[in-house]
Amino acid sequence: MKRLTLAQAYELAESILLHNGFNQAHARAVSATVLAGERDGCASHGLYRVLGCINSLRAGKVSADAAPRVIDQAPSIVRVDAAGGFSQLAFQAGLPLLQEKTRANGIAALAINRCVHFSALWVEIEQLTAAGLVALACNPSHAWVAPAGGCQPVFGTNPIAFGWPRAGRDPFVFDFATSAIARGDIELHRRAGKAIPEGWGVDAQGLPSTDANVVLDTGAMLTFGGHKGSALAAMVELIAGPLIGDLTSAESLAYDAGSKSSPYHGELIIAFDPQRFLGAATEEHLARAEGLFAGIEGQGARLPSQRRYEARARSEAEGVQIPLALFNDLQALLKG
Amino acid sequence: MKRLTLAQAYELAESILLHNGFNQAHARAVSATVLAGERDGCASHGLYRVLGCINSLRAGKVSADAAPRVIDQAPSIVRVDAAGGFSQLAFQAGLPLLQEKTRANGIAALAINRCVHFSALWVEIEQLTAAGLVALACNPSHAWVAPAGGCQPVFGTNPIAFGWPRAGRDPFVFDFATSAIARGDIELHRRAGKAIPEGWGVDAQGLPSTDANVVLDTGAMLTFGGHKGSALAAMVELIAGPLIGDLTSAESLAYDAGSKSSPYHGELIIAFDPQRFLGAATEEHLARAEGLFAGIEGQGARLPSQRRYEARARSEAEGVQIPLALFNDLQALLKG
Repeated sequence: MKRLTLAQAYELAESILLHNGFNQAHARAVSATVLAGERDGCASHGLYRVLGCINSLRAGKVSADAAPRVIDQAPSIVRVDAAGGFSQLAFQAGLPLLQEKTRANGIAALAINRCVHFSALWVEIEQLTAAGLVALACNPSHAWVAPAGGCQPVFGTNPIAFGWPRAGRDPFVFDFATSAIARGDIELHRRAGKAIPEGWGVDAQGLPSTDANVVLDTGAMLTFGGHKGSALAAMVELIAGPLIGDLTSAESLAYDAGSKSSPYHGELIIAFDPQRFLGAATEEHLARAEGLFAGIEGQGARLPSQRRYEARARSEAEGVQIPLALFNDLQALLKG
Repeated sequence: MKRLTLAQAYELAESILLHNGFNQAHARAVSATVLAGERDGCASHGLYRVLGCINSLRAGKVSADAAPRVIDQAPSIVRVDAAGGFSQLAFQAGLPLLQEKTRANGIAALAINRCVHFSALWVEIEQLTAAGLVALACNPSHAWVAPAGGCQPVFGTNPIAFGWPRAGRDPFVFDFATSAIARGDIELHRRAGKAIPEGWGVDAQGLPSTDANVVLDTGAMLTFGGHKGSALAAMVELIAGPLIGDLTSAESLAYDAGSKSSPYHGELIIAFDPQRFLGAATEEHLARAEGLFAGIEGQGARLPSQRRYEARARSEAEGVQIPLALFNDLQALLKG
């Protein structure tokens, strides 16, 4: 393992992105999210993703310098045309108008279009909870996941993330793939040559498989939670796909045409302003939410964001560790 | 079993509600939803629920004649104060302004407050899809469900429902409890004296139980999908509880004080207007959604609403059948 301070990890990501041709704005936005992933113990959304960024760029599947264009679509809808760049900069571009519309109207949506996407959603959710807003976000990916009762990939890993602001505390945030597991986790098993647990995927005949290569290359991943998880995955396809005029996971995979780049599609973020729902009673009602959290933690159960905050505190004190092989692969991208 | 035409089933529900003191508006709204449940093969939200309506009324836990009050809370928020009546009439009262705000702004929310709630959400979702809108709805219930990693009830069964309009076809609709199973299904097992499958609940020590009495009375139900289902259940508590100034499932159960009435809390409905997201390209993008449905059905998997629509067609042709014991219990409510 190779230990890096957070500043070194950020610097490594940014310098690779700049060296390979991304402009400063994209390099900064992307590096901030992979750093957040690595820092919070989400290796599958950490520095490892920089390899994918460069792969996508070399395959001609992402713009290195697209300037996102913000569109005031409707009183409660912001759209951002990412113009083929990574989603991170597009999210930043749309965030101020999303906040403004949410505070004005109570609820508003940000639709990011034509972005190349690999970002963990909780990074974005935390920017909304930091502003005192409740937020929900989702996106399709590539068609890797079979629907309940089927064996052919139709859905992406289709994450859903949610955040709730807490006064004087870290927000309540969850962010999970509607697939049984994130594809990045299966990729890490493949890199490590390890079998995957049952329930993550099937082979081309729809039979259970523990071979990461089979599930990733010829079979399909499964959703979590059977037909309910499958229904949620379909919802994500619809509201973060056709509803916002963007690609489904199947269309994104077709566009990829075998280049194994990051998915190209849209993302939907919905924000709620508790102040507009509750007015003068906001503080009183948000205090009642604390009773729910106490009821969960009081019986020894964990809040979904807890492990991430613990990893964050640890990383801020001690830095992060990444596999030496990954560090070497990353270093190689600084040459030539 | 007792066979009834749909008209007879509606008439039975309405006459019981009127006979026991509900006013015409409430009797009509409630009868329409229990008829829809029975008709669509959802026995747990069918005529059986009329027993609970009368129980709630006799326990003084629901108003027989509350007039819902519609509040224009913010440009994209409608609130309806149900004033202690069943949710169905409150939903009807808020629907026109929700539609208006959704069409004006692109996305809008309807928050129903202080309602007594047992309605299946898909009945409401279908009214929004019929108007060409995409819709998402959820509500807490009573604290019957333990969080992942715990054994004490904190969450309600907390259903999430979603609908997507389809031109010339039945809409894509799902509606599921974030508990492993609807409480009504466990109640039906208890009535039938049958064991419940493993995974539905635990006893007071957190050990798996297949005894409906234990799970309902002293233990806890479980969520679907492990920690992911548990996270969704928490989200429903928050956005359809404190965010809209209404009770959590634990607070609703405390208010019930052992009367075993229907839960008293709020409900949140979010509606999206595809026209405002997509403008002139609406038809083109909604047509792409059909490709997703074809990809699911083309491999022999079913859409979540399919079984309901099949039951509907069957019921419209042949009427419905309910257990004779239930029919007799219902008839008894027409006496005295």
